[in-house]
Amino acid sequence: MHQYKVGILGATGAVGQKFVRLLENHPWFVIHKVAASERSAGKTYREATNWLEDTVLSESAGKLTVQPCTPEALADVDFVFSGLDSSVASEIEMQFAEAGIPVISNAKNYRTHNQVPLLVPEVNPEHAELIRKQTFSKKGNGFIVTNPNCVCVPLVMSLRPLYDAFGVESVVVTSMQAISGAGYPGVPSLDIMGNVVPYISGEEDKIMTEPLKILGKRSPDGEIEEASFPIHASAYRVPVIDGHLLSVVVKLKKADVKPSDATEAILNWKNPISDMQLPSAPKQAIRLMEDPRHPQPRVHAMSENGMQVSIGRLRKAGVFDLSYTVLGHNTIRGAAGGAILNAELLVKEGYL
Amino acid sequence: MHQYKVGILGATGAVGQKFVRLLENHPWFVIHKVAASERSAGKTYREATNWLEDTVLSESAGKLTVQPCTPEALADVDFVFSGLDSSVASEIEMQFAEAGIPVISNAKNYRTHNQVPLLVPEVNPEHAELIRKQTFSKKGNGFIVTNPNCVCVPLVMSLRPLYDAFGVESVVVTSMQAISGAGYPGVPSLDIMGNVVPYISGEEDKIMTEPLKILGKRSPDGEIEEASFPIHASAYRVPVIDGHLLSVVVKLKKADVKPSDATEAILNWKNPISDMQLPSAPKQAIRLMEDPRHPQPRVHAMSENGMQVSIGRLRKAGVFDLSYTVLGHNTIRGAAGGAILNAELLVKEGYL
Amino acid sequence: MHQYKVGILGATGAVGQKFVRLLENHPWFVIHKVAASERSAGKTYREATNWLEDTVLSESAGKLTVQPCTPEALADVDFVFSGLDSSVASEIEMQFAEAGIPVISNAKNYRTHNQVPLLVPEVNPEHAELIRKQTFSKKGNGFIVTNPNCVCVPLVMSLRPLYDAFGVESVVVTSMQAISGAGYPGVPSLDIMGNVVPYISGEEDKIMTEPLKILGKRSPDGEIEEASFPIHASAYRVPVIDGHLLSVVVKLKKADVKPSDATEAILNWKNPISDMQLPSAPKQAIRLMEDPRHPQPRVHAMSENGMQVSIGRLRKAGVFDLSYTVLGHNTIRGAAGGAILNAELLVKEGYL
Amino acid sequence: MHQYKVGILGATGAVGQKFVRLLENHPWFVIHKVAASERSAGKTYREATNWLEDTVLSESAGKLTVQPCTPEALADVDFVFSGLDSSVASEIEMQFAEAGIPVISNAKNYRTHNQVPLLVPEVNPEHAELIRKQTFSKKGNGFIVTNPNCVCVPLVMSLRPLYDAFGVESVVVTSMQAISGAGYPGVPSLDIMGNVVPYISGEEDKIMTEPLKILGKRSPDGEIEEASFPIHASAYRVPVIDGHLLSVVVKLKKADVKPSDATEAILNWKNPISDMQLPSAPKQAIRLMEDPRHPQPRVHAMSENGMQVSIGRLRKAGVFDLSYTVLGHNTIRGAAGGAILNAELLVKEGYL
Repeated sequence: MHQYKVGILGATGAVGQKFVRLLENHPWFVIHKVAASERSAGKTYREATNWLEDTVLSESAGKLTVQPCTPEALADVDFVFSGLDSSVASEIEMQFAEAGIPVISNAKNYRTHNQVPLLVPEVNPEHAELIRKQTFSKKGNGFIVTNPNCVCVPLVMSLRPLYDAFGVESVVVTSMQAISGAGYPGVPSLDIMGNVVPYISGEEDKIMTEPLKILGKRSPDGEIEEASFPIHASAYRVPVIDGHLLSVVVKLKKADVKPSDATEAILNWKNPISDMQLPSAPKQAIRLMEDPRHPQPRVHAMSENGMQVSIGRLRKAGVFDLSYTVLGHNTIRGAAGGAILNAELLVKEGYL
Repeated sequence: MHQYKVGILGATGAVGQKFVRLLENHPWFVIHKVAASERSAGKTYREATNWLEDTVLSESAGKLTVQPCTPEALADVDFVFSGLDSSVASEIEMQFAEAGIPVISNAKNYRTHNQVPLLVPEVNPEHAELIRKQTFSKKGNGFIVTNPNCVCVPLVMSLRPLYDAFGVESVVVTSMQAISGAGYPGVPSLDIMGNVVPYISGEEDKIMTEPLKILGKRSPDGEIEEASFPIHASAYRVPVIDGHLLSVVVKLKKADVKPSDATEAILNWKNPISDMQLPSAPKQAIRLMEDPRHPQPRVHAMSENGMQVSIGRLRKAGVFDLSYTVLGHNTIRGAAGGAILNAELLVKEGYL
Repeated sequence: MHQYKVGILGATGAVGQKFVRLLENHPWFVIHKVAASERSAGKTYREATNWLEDTVLSESAGKLTVQPCTPEALADVDFVFSGLDSSVASEIEMQFAEAGIPVISNAKNYRTHNQVPLLVPEVNPEHAELIRKQTFSKKGNGFIVTNPNCVCVPLVMSLRPLYDAFGVESVVVTSMQAISGAGYPGVPSLDIMGNVVPYISGEEDKIMTEPLKILGKRSPDGEIEEASFPIHASAYRVPVIDGHLLSVVVKLKKADVKPSDATEAILNWKNPISDMQLPSAPKQAIRLMEDPRHPQPRVHAMSENGMQVSIGRLRKAGVFDLSYTVLGHNTIRGAAGGAILNAELLVKEGYL
Repeated sequence: MHQYKVGILGATGAVGQKFVRLLENHPWFVIHKVAASERSAGKTYREATNWLEDTVLSESAGKLTVQPCTPEALADVDFVFSGLDSSVASEIEMQFAEAGIPVISNAKNYRTHNQVPLLVPEVNPEHAELIRKQTFSKKGNGFIVTNPNCVCVPLVMSLRPLYDAFGVESVVVTSMQAISGAGYPGVPSLDIMGNVVPYISGEEDKIMTEPLKILGKRSPDGEIEEASFPIHASAYRVPVIDGHLLSVVVKLKKADVKPSDATEAILNWKNPISDMQLPSAPKQAIRLMEDPRHPQPRVHAMSENGMQVSIGRLRKAGVFDLSYTVLGHNTIRGAAGGAILNAELLVKEGYL
């Protein structure tokens, strides 16, 4: 396989570091350039970075010189991953797309843009075709593709089989979210140790809207018709390092669906990318757990290198139809790992 | 005020210790006898107890001789508080009631018995009249009164004003529960540190049923007609010491209720015991918090000595009508403190 | 007793808030003015403060207008408590002293100044006389008094009886320090949850030097002759909210001291302020615990309102002579509470 | 390489599970039999085990039938690893040795026996020769080899270079130990969350004695002459999942050793097994860290699959000569992983 030269925007931040770590030894993608703010530009990546991962920073990445976040400085990469902060992502990501450099972004800025795919390969791979309608590029083959908010990933992965089999009428979700989702320095320890905080700024809106785009259908003219059911979300921060755990209650369109029917729907669900041999794809995208004490973030978030989503406690709900809990690794499956899987899909589908 | 001689059943356990601590310096109640299993009987309370509270065990309680849990051994008390384990509470509590010794119990065994009040003074003080229908006592004035499960207390306290003002059609609740709720040794640290466990054995059933009895009306013949709306509960254990935090979504009977209406209903709610001057009653039973980051268990569970319930994030829900979060101290408001407040009500109402 | 009007410098910070909380209902001291940086000046204290305490901010303090940290703005106070950051404390505190306003400071800046008492009332109350040698005040009765670093307080309180009875030749201490010692936002949760950090910037130097001044003697000319034994300190941050726990090994000057001798020395130690009836003084300044599992920060830091120091595991050391563990509340006994007790001593001794 | 059939004694316990996990995919050793108490015997390993590891239990191990802990039931294994509880290890391990089945044990029972090697391959591989003096076996080639207490491993690995280069006169160590060291259910969460416990039953004695045997020399007649310097240990439990962190102060025999000399001694230390290509040996046994905030248990305990020991903050001590902090993974390097490395050494040296 051809090796792609990739750039990483926002490489010194928490998401950027996760990109660097996950791309070490990647069979298709080689980190060719790292870019960050002006303050870091010119230093080696090792110097510029307060390395937070619990692995040793690789020699090859450590000695890269940090570049400014401009298309000129990264002109020789095949595409970029963006871990940029939302305060700067709008402008910078568009500059890269305009300059013909594809952007695989984890930032929220273009997620709701009607020309931009909001992509989870196992859930809506066909949305990648939106790229063809994108008008951002002023030369070459630039475009922007995004992955959803970290809570939305396990939510839509668990809803996909149910939505297809029975239709969904409404969803109530309470998320218990890990501290790593807030980046670094992020959540002060005095706020969260031995505590729960019932609010995460800006989070609930994303959980209530992004899944509708992801579960949407392409219309005949190639646009996405969003799914249209209400989601109510309550986002809580809990003292967990990695892994967002969701308490979900679902009302289905179809009447009289039993938990066993839902179990069957999940087990029979055909993963659309299972035959593509994407390097970062989990062998089993959704795991259904029977032990009522599972899944647990500390124990199960890293299953299949953090790319598997785990469902447990699937049962009849006294209100609505179904209740379950679902877990996903927020900074891997829900962020950098999800973006890398997106890039792998785009390679396989010929967009990269 | 006459001082009551009280006994404590199950005095060496976690709930029993909380009774001992909270009754220290109580203006009406004096700990006269402590009782526990045969294994502890005969020792001093200090010797028999692995004291878990973060206060110093009082001299007076420490030197009491632990009694066996029999009506004979506690014949000279005015009434008993029961912190007995449910495995033995059925038999022992009934023996006391039969022998004419009132039992104010925190155990679950008689909560659903149709002759036994399941009492939260601020919510259903009139249920105390059920005592008059009780047929347990074989001599004197024995009876059993219970307080609800620790999650149910903040739940019914928050629902009471809404139920009265608008009617309730259904409730979805996800509880994030503190480790102290599991007693001692309780939850192994390897299970819960940096983790969330999506299951607490036996808990969800209580949350889905007890509130209906508590919010029930006395019928003309004096029985309780339970409220009849579905509750769906998902109980999670979180790494918090004290304080259960609930994520609640409510569908109301009345149409078009706005969050501001709900706020008003809560603020205007008339606390039925506010004029009774019960020593353990919080001055303000329900606190409505405006900071969206509040309430938090570590910071707010102990408000008004752990007897206040705090509501936050009251807002319109995309699904159903209202969403909020509510916090209550599980071992005080939701257990020993609630039982003591029950006893104070019963004193004031002439049952004790 | 005459009520003193006090000002609080740095009132919106973590230490300043602790002053505000602890002075609520103080029998001698009334918060008359709160002062903070220019950014906060002019707002009410409630508006300007991200209140971190787990109590409700008092009405009276909440409505005070925040003043700038100048002697002019606080001209009508009897003295000030300083919770200033060390980056500004040198200049501001000196301005107050020069202007004739006594400063009872928790900042480190003047702790080692040879005219400034570094005071722990139970340990070296006679050092207060240094005030008479102070030459800072340009009018009236201004002076500066400091309390030591939060680790030094339990260390010197535990060393005092041993030093007096046997002499001390050297001390090795490993401190396990709570996160509240770093202020707010302070330690990022990603750094400390489920973790230990073997370094706290600037901390070890203070632990190795301040005790020598505190245990020093006043020479005939009124100066402090520092004690002269080496202390080696290793400071660790642990995931604890409040309470610094120290592992101490001591070599004594006197030979063949047995643990029972040390126990006796501690129990017989005469607390020099025990008869002064200072409102914040613990009834028992040092508690000796026999349960080998004690003291523990979460359980015992708040004993006697956080003003008591607890010693446990006093035993023969295989190396040196004695080993023990000692606990003190870092933000109360080791900071704001210690400063308030200093002020109370100074009132009693006629300096205020 | 010949594949060894191995048995695991105490396979369902916490240490036993760690053996099962670490031996999955081991190039030399295949789990042939798992053995546990009578209560578990006859069940499949999956049924009998409350699997605590954060990986999926392998199919092959899960379907093994649990055997009783008798030499007869494990007659066809080449040797056994023992994760037995100390309450039963003395008898069972001796039965295996007598029956000619070598025992590589993590239990403490035979560590101090003068015929039994207490082995850390990087530190005292030559002690393996003690096996030749062992008289336990009644037929065939049975023997017992042990690995030390989990705190002792990082301690002796860090002391080895210093001891060889400068001699050691005394050591003061405070250990901050992870909860996984107490097994399962182990430490109650109410005891340790947000807390530190200054005592671990039985631990300090091991830390003060085992290193002396490990650092001992073989005398001409093949016995071990223990090293003879005093060690003082204080063992604390901290809220960390994995990884024991030690605060160490060392007095050296040689005068005027500078920290830079110590650094050099550690860097120049010749790892005696570095050329043996043992599968579980870390490439770099001791890592010297320069960032003063390192090592940290949550971040660095798993370095080199949990087999590396990390030293940080090497510096001059105000008391004694040197101070540093050292970290080792307690259940891998300090238990099951250490035992496996012992077995690998014994294979290479021809004892197995």
